[in-house]
Amino acid sequence: MIGVNPYFDRLRGGYLFAEINKRAESFRRQNPEKRLISLGIGDVTRPLCPEVITAMHKAVDEMSEGETFRGYGPYFGYDFLVRAIIDNDYASRGVQMDPEEVFVNDGCKSDSSGILELFSEATSISVCDPVYPVYVDAAVMTGRGGLFDENIGAYSRIDTFQCNEDNNYIPTPPDASDKRAFRGLIFLCFPNNPTGAAINAEKLSAWVEYANRTGSVIIYDSAYEAYISEDLPHSIFEIEGARTCAIELRSFSKTAGFTGVRCGYTVIPKELVCDGIVLRNLWARRQSTRNNGVSYITQRAAEAVYSPAGKEQIRETIGYYAKNAGILKDALVSCGFSVGGGVNAPYLWIRTPEKTDSWSFFDRMLERCAVVVTPGVGFGKAGEGYFRVTAFGSRETAEEAARRFRKEFAK
Amino acid sequence: MIGVNPYFDRLRGGYLFAEINKRAESFRRQNPEKRLISLGIGDVTRPLCPEVITAMHKAVDEMSEGETFRGYGPYFGYDFLVRAIIDNDYASRGVQMDPEEVFVNDGCKSDSSGILELFSEATSISVCDPVYPVYVDAAVMTGRGGLFDENIGAYSRIDTFQCNEDNNYIPTPPDASDKRAFRGLIFLCFPNNPTGAAINAEKLSAWVEYANRTGSVIIYDSAYEAYISEDLPHSIFEIEGARTCAIELRSFSKTAGFTGVRCGYTVIPKELVCDGIVLRNLWARRQSTRNNGVSYITQRAAEAVYSPAGKEQIRETIGYYAKNAGILKDALVSCGFSVGGGVNAPYLWIRTPEKTDSWSFFDRMLERCAVVVTPGVGFGKAGEGYFRVTAFGSRETAEEAARRFRKEFAK
Repeated sequence: MIGVNPYFDRLRGGYLFAEINKRAESFRRQNPEKRLISLGIGDVTRPLCPEVITAMHKAVDEMSEGETFRGYGPYFGYDFLVRAIIDNDYASRGVQMDPEEVFVNDGCKSDSSGILELFSEATSISVCDPVYPVYVDAAVMTGRGGLFDENIGAYSRIDTFQCNEDNNYIPTPPDASDKRAFRGLIFLCFPNNPTGAAINAEKLSAWVEYANRTGSVIIYDSAYEAYISEDLPHSIFEIEGARTCAIELRSFSKTAGFTGVRCGYTVIPKELVCDGIVLRNLWARRQSTRNNGVSYITQRAAEAVYSPAGKEQIRETIGYYAKNAGILKDALVSCGFSVGGGVNAPYLWIRTPEKTDSWSFFDRMLERCAVVVTPGVGFGKAGEGYFRVTAFGSRETAEEAARRFRKEFAK
Repeated sequence: MIGVNPYFDRLRGGYLFAEINKRAESFRRQNPEKRLISLGIGDVTRPLCPEVITAMHKAVDEMSEGETFRGYGPYFGYDFLVRAIIDNDYASRGVQMDPEEVFVNDGCKSDSSGILELFSEATSISVCDPVYPVYVDAAVMTGRGGLFDENIGAYSRIDTFQCNEDNNYIPTPPDASDKRAFRGLIFLCFPNNPTGAAINAEKLSAWVEYANRTGSVIIYDSAYEAYISEDLPHSIFEIEGARTCAIELRSFSKTAGFTGVRCGYTVIPKELVCDGIVLRNLWARRQSTRNNGVSYITQRAAEAVYSPAGKEQIRETIGYYAKNAGILKDALVSCGFSVGGGVNAPYLWIRTPEKTDSWSFFDRMLERCAVVVTPGVGFGKAGEGYFRVTAFGSRETAEEAARRFRKEFAK
C-alpha cells in the first residue's frame, strides 16, 4: 500500500514571514514615496570577512588541480575543522571534547529537526514559549507533536515553558513535586531567538540537574553564543553534568555571516546514553546513511573563522551588529517601551504599549514608521503582545529606525 | 517519556567499505612493496572544470562586498540555477518543467532518504537487488523496512526485483495477475549503481504504466545520466505518463565531479498526487521547515556546468572516465569474464569465474593483482557471485589494472 505522511496535515501556520511580506508589500504599493526599513527577518547583511574569502579562494584553487582535488569528504567533517572547533569553542573555555563527538553539518536548522530521529515517536517534547518554530514544526511533521488544540493554542503532545517579563524570559525547570515534572526532550536556545535573553550558569545548571535527575535530554541551541558580551556560559558543556544529558547545536550563520554559505555543527558527548544506547553512535549511523558531508570549500571557510585574523574580523562584525542593537534599544527605551534582549543577542523583544496585540502593533509600526518588525505571536502564544526587532541591518538603517521610533513614540 | 528510535537496531551491515578497507590495509602491511590499485569506491578523481572554478571565484568575491553579499537564499534554489537545470536537462530533451517543480539540494543522497518522509510508515517499498544501500537503510531507520529475515536474506517489508544476467540487469514490472503485483514506492536507478545497466524507453514505459495503473510512485535516481552514450532516456520524464507517478533525483556529483562540492536536485511534478494530496506541496513544506537552502557559491558552480564551455569541459571529463571503463572492460572480456555495464555508466559489473563467491574473489583480486574491487554481495543477495569495478581513477591506473588482469586471468 501507499499513503501520505499523515502528520504534515497537523501543521499550523508557518506563514508568519509570508504574511509579513504581504502586508509590507501592500504598504509599499500604497506608499511608494516612503522608504521601508525592515527589522524583521533575522538575516545577516555584512559581507564575509577577508580571512574567510581568502580561504575560500585557496580551497577553490585546490579543487582545480588533480593533486589537491577533494572528492567525498569525511561524513562528519574534516579533521582540520573539527580540531579548530574543539580548540577554539571548547578547550579555550576549559571544556574537553573528543573529535568523534563533533559532527559538522550544513547549518543547525537541518540537525535541529533531524535530531528527533534519534528518539522514538512516543518521546515527550518540551519547548520554550515563545520559540523558534522549527523545533515544533519538525516534531509535528514526524508524528511527535500531537494535534493542535485551538483552546490552549498549542500542540497536545508538546509541553511549553512560558518565557515572559515575570521570569526575565528565562524559564526554571519544574520541581520534583511539580505535576509538570516530566521525562523527555527539552529544547533550550540561549541566547534566545526571539527574546534575546541569555541564561547564566546557575540557571543553566538547574536545567542540567533536572535533566540528569529525570533522565531527560536537553537539545541546546547556542547559535547566537558569539553575541554574548557578559560573563555567561557560551556552551552547555561549561556546566558540570551536561555530558550525560545534553546535545549542543552550533552554527557559523550568525557568528560569521554564513547564512548563505551553510555550515554548523552538532556536539554529542559519548556519555550521553538513552535506553542503554550511546546516542553519539546512533547519530553517526544516521549521518553516514543520510548525508555525504559538507562542501570542502565551506569547511575551509569555517576553519578560517578561527584564525587569529579571522577571529578579530568576525569580532568586528559582531560588534557592528551589537552597536545597532544598542542604538535601537536606547531609542525604544527612551520612548518608554519595556525592551528585553539586545545585550547578549542580536534580537530585541519588546512589549507592545497598552496591551495592543502583536499584529495590530505590527500594522501601526508599518503605517506610522514604515518599519517592518516581527509580531511576537508568530513565535507562540506567549509572544502575543510582543514584537521582535533584529539588529542585522546597516548602521544607517538602525539610526534611521531609531529616529522614526523617537518621532512617533517619544513621551 | 523518552525512548530511542527502535528501528536503527534493525539495520544490518553497512560495513561494506569498512571491511574492504580493513582487508586492503592488511594486504598493504604484508606487501609494502606492491602498489595497490583501488577500483572500489565510486568517487571521482578529476579536478573541477575551469568554468566551475571561475564561477566559484566570482561568487566568493561577491560574498566579500556588501552590495553583492548573499545571506539566506531561496529554500528551493536560486532562480538562475533552476532555470539552467530546466533549460538544459529537460527542455533540451523536449520535456517541460515548471520552476516550482525543481528543488535544489546538497546532493541526491539527502533526498533519496528524506523523500520517504512524504509517505506513511505503512507504505510498501520495493527496490532492485542488487541496490545502492541508502534506499534500504533509510527505509529501515524510519520504520518502513521491517525486520531482517536471515532465511531470505532481506528485510520483511522491502520487496526486491532481481537483476541478473538473465534479464540483462533490467527488471520488468509484475503482470496485473502476478501475485507480486503491489501498490507502493518503487526505487529505480538507471544508469544503475552497481550494475552499470541502462534502461531503454520501452522498458521504462512499462514501469511508468505499471505505477500509474497501481497507484504506485517511482523514485527515479538518474545520478549517472551524464554517462549515457547510447540513445536512451536520460530522465523518466521523457516517458509519457511519468508526471503522474514519478519523482526524479539528480546530482552534479558524477556529472561534474561535485562529490566534494555537494549539489543535486529533486524534481516533483505538480500532477503527482497521493491520497488526494499534491506531493510537491508537501515536499515544499518539508524542505522549508528542515533546510535553509544550498550555498550560493555552490549554486553558482552548478550553474557554470551548463555554460557552453562548461558543458564542453564536463563532456571531456566524462569521456575520460568512459575511456577508462572501455580499457577495463576490454581487458576483462578478453580474459573471458562476463562483464555488464561500462557503456552508459562508470561502473562494470562482473560475474566471478566458476561461481566463486564475491568475498573470495575479492581476496583473490587483492592477492594476485593488488587490485581492490567491490564485492557484489555488498549490494544485496542477488549481488553474490559478482564484483563491481569503477572507472573513476586515472588513465594510468586503469591501464595498469588492465595489464594485471590480463596477466592473471588471460586464457
